[in-house]
Amino acid sequence: MKITMAHGSGGRATTDLIAGIFAKHLGNQILDKMEDSAVIPGAATIAMTTDSFVVTPLFFPGGDIGKLAVCGTVNDLCMSGAIPKYLTCGFILEEGALIAEIEQIVLSMANAAREAGVIIVAGDTKVIEGKGGIYINTTGVGFMPANALEYNNEPAIRASNCKDGDVIILSGYIGDHHAAILSSRMNIKNTIKSDCAPLCGITKALKESGVKIKAMRDVTRGGLATVLNEFATASQCGITIDEINIPVSGQVRAFSKILGLDPLYMANEGKMIAVVDRKDAQKVLGCMHDSPYGRNATIIGAITQGCKDPESQGDGGVGTLTTPPSPWNKDDAVAKTVDWKPTVILNTTIGGVRIIPELYGEGLPRIC
Amino acid sequence: MKITMAHGSGGRATTDLIAGIFAKHLGNQILDKMEDSAVIPGAATIAMTTDSFVVTPLFFPGGDIGKLAVCGTVNDLCMSGAIPKYLTCGFILEEGALIAEIEQIVLSMANAAREAGVIIVAGDTKVIEGKGGIYINTTGVGFMPANALEYNNEPAIRASNCKDGDVIILSGYIGDHHAAILSSRMNIKNTIKSDCAPLCGITKALKESGVKIKAMRDVTRGGLATVLNEFATASQCGITIDEINIPVSGQVRAFSKILGLDPLYMANEGKMIAVVDRKDAQKVLGCMHDSPYGRNATIIGAITQGCKDPESQGDGGVGTLTTPPSPWNKDDAVAKTVDWKPTVILNTTIGGVRIIPELYGEGLPRIC
Repeated sequence: MKITMAHGSGGRATTDLIAGIFAKHLGNQILDKMEDSAVIPGAATIAMTTDSFVVTPLFFPGGDIGKLAVCGTVNDLCMSGAIPKYLTCGFILEEGALIAEIEQIVLSMANAAREAGVIIVAGDTKVIEGKGGIYINTTGVGFMPANALEYNNEPAIRASNCKDGDVIILSGYIGDHHAAILSSRMNIKNTIKSDCAPLCGITKALKESGVKIKAMRDVTRGGLATVLNEFATASQCGITIDEINIPVSGQVRAFSKILGLDPLYMANEGKMIAVVDRKDAQKVLGCMHDSPYGRNATIIGAITQGCKDPESQGDGGVGTLTTPPSPWNKDDAVAKTVDWKPTVILNTTIGGVRIIPELYGEGLPRIC
Repeated sequence: MKITMAHGSGGRATTDLIAGIFAKHLGNQILDKMEDSAVIPGAATIAMTTDSFVVTPLFFPGGDIGKLAVCGTVNDLCMSGAIPKYLTCGFILEEGALIAEIEQIVLSMANAAREAGVIIVAGDTKVIEGKGGIYINTTGVGFMPANALEYNNEPAIRASNCKDGDVIILSGYIGDHHAAILSSRMNIKNTIKSDCAPLCGITKALKESGVKIKAMRDVTRGGLATVLNEFATASQCGITIDEINIPVSGQVRAFSKILGLDPLYMANEGKMIAVVDRKDAQKVLGCMHDSPYGRNATIIGAITQGCKDPESQGDGGVGTLTTPPSPWNKDDAVAKTVDWKPTVILNTTIGGVRIIPELYGEGLPRIC
């Protein structure tokens, strides 16, 4: 059985598809009402995020687009310090999509939602011409703890919070999702699996530990390099990481070497970084190590000098870095090209120093 | 300038697209933070809905996909009795999509959001291969009034609330959106415009009037026939409407006659029906007539006998209709085929009686 344009008409064929697959596997008291909107308990402060998933292939080692669509949005909520609560899902189906595959994907969504403790409260299905593709938008709402907003209505956890001396903790091996997708597409035989997983167990443990997280983000498309650059820009600081401390599995290392890929730019779907005060680092590592998705967590680097300090510098921006990060002093030519911008520096295993710019351009298309 | 796969990479090209178009036109204090989730004030009870838009052509008389994406989701929130507050938007762009067109669409979204009083708090962009198509998911959160839930946690406004004798009020002419899209596609010259509009002004007035709305729904793809069938099924009741009272503009009437279309199944994007007690009908009509989007509101029919009565019939369902709706008595052959299911009946202008089944199959593909 394949999807036809009729399944997107809003009439009987749509109703049958909803009843036969979506309601069957995702059903709950709220979704079952089938009203225009779900009416649900709220909270004083909520978090809201949206993500569309266009990954190809639809099924890959370690997961599928359904698991990805739930985990991706759940993780975005977690990274703001929210407890994920509700998801909506919008399917855009291309004509010819296999109904059996849709059912398998929906089942994955149901399982991932159960693990993450969220319910799917609303859905939508549209059909377009094409070659059987399946695209999923998930949008999530989470409840924020009472102390989620600081003075000036700023979220307590935010990218602009990094301060000189803070440490950066990564929850585990990087590059697995990227390598798994690419292996699937290129038909390369290996046992690499996507790391696709919900991170709410880790963030719940962090919350309960009482540790103060300054910034936190899941490491997805664009890779570790992109998140670190976002933090450096938002906090107007330098970041130095040590290559030797960055966890990459043997298989992914070999895979990326052969294909000329840099694990720092490879996508992940179950990894996060947290920036915390140095004194809190061991507590954070403990929380991560207790989760099946954070067993290989490690400190990978630190926020460096040049950090913007709102107390002493008013509204200072790029121009206010007081001291250039130390690597510049070694090489004046490099210093000129980077123009003292907030910069991510890698101390390489062989003792060199490399600037890690933001990803420009392709990455791997349709990785999530 | 066209969209390339690089715009979906999550790297620099994505960032540039976001800064250059999305943040520029949709920017607000919350969206500008660019965190994984928006952290926003909530409410004790919220409404949540999702909708994807795949309309073609992207621009049509009376609107475009951007206006549609905001109005559609805002209207779904309104129909639950919520005050629309936050939207997220997820763009799926096909390679080759024109950046100038995306900007025009985003501008439309900004304007529609302003009119509807909502802000866009989170966004996402993905790129797929294709022929320049643009697809938009919008997901909305609204705040519910304190009395939004009744005993048993049931929403106060719901499709299953219709009772024998209630009247059905339609907010204006039907078929305009459908006819406008089809005219565009077939290059037919006329002045029909889509009715695409936010209905929050009407629902706000209804709320302030204190009138008790039993069921309320916007009339979109699938048309009036589909919504009425949903109400009949949910409430296990009969519905009778009078063709002579159903407002269809002269141009749409002529257009649909030539093409053999039935306005009852034609899509709308700025129309709603409300089911209320007979004594409240004039108050509801007053609220609608005061809005630019409800000037032609009218009573189109009523809920009929056979209505399920939870007080007297326990958990009765399809089989418990006490009296068959009167039309059956006239024609035993019809009665046998419909098996006493909740049914929508049309009294035709020429004095006949017609069953109006749910839409099965195509409708018009990609109408919204």
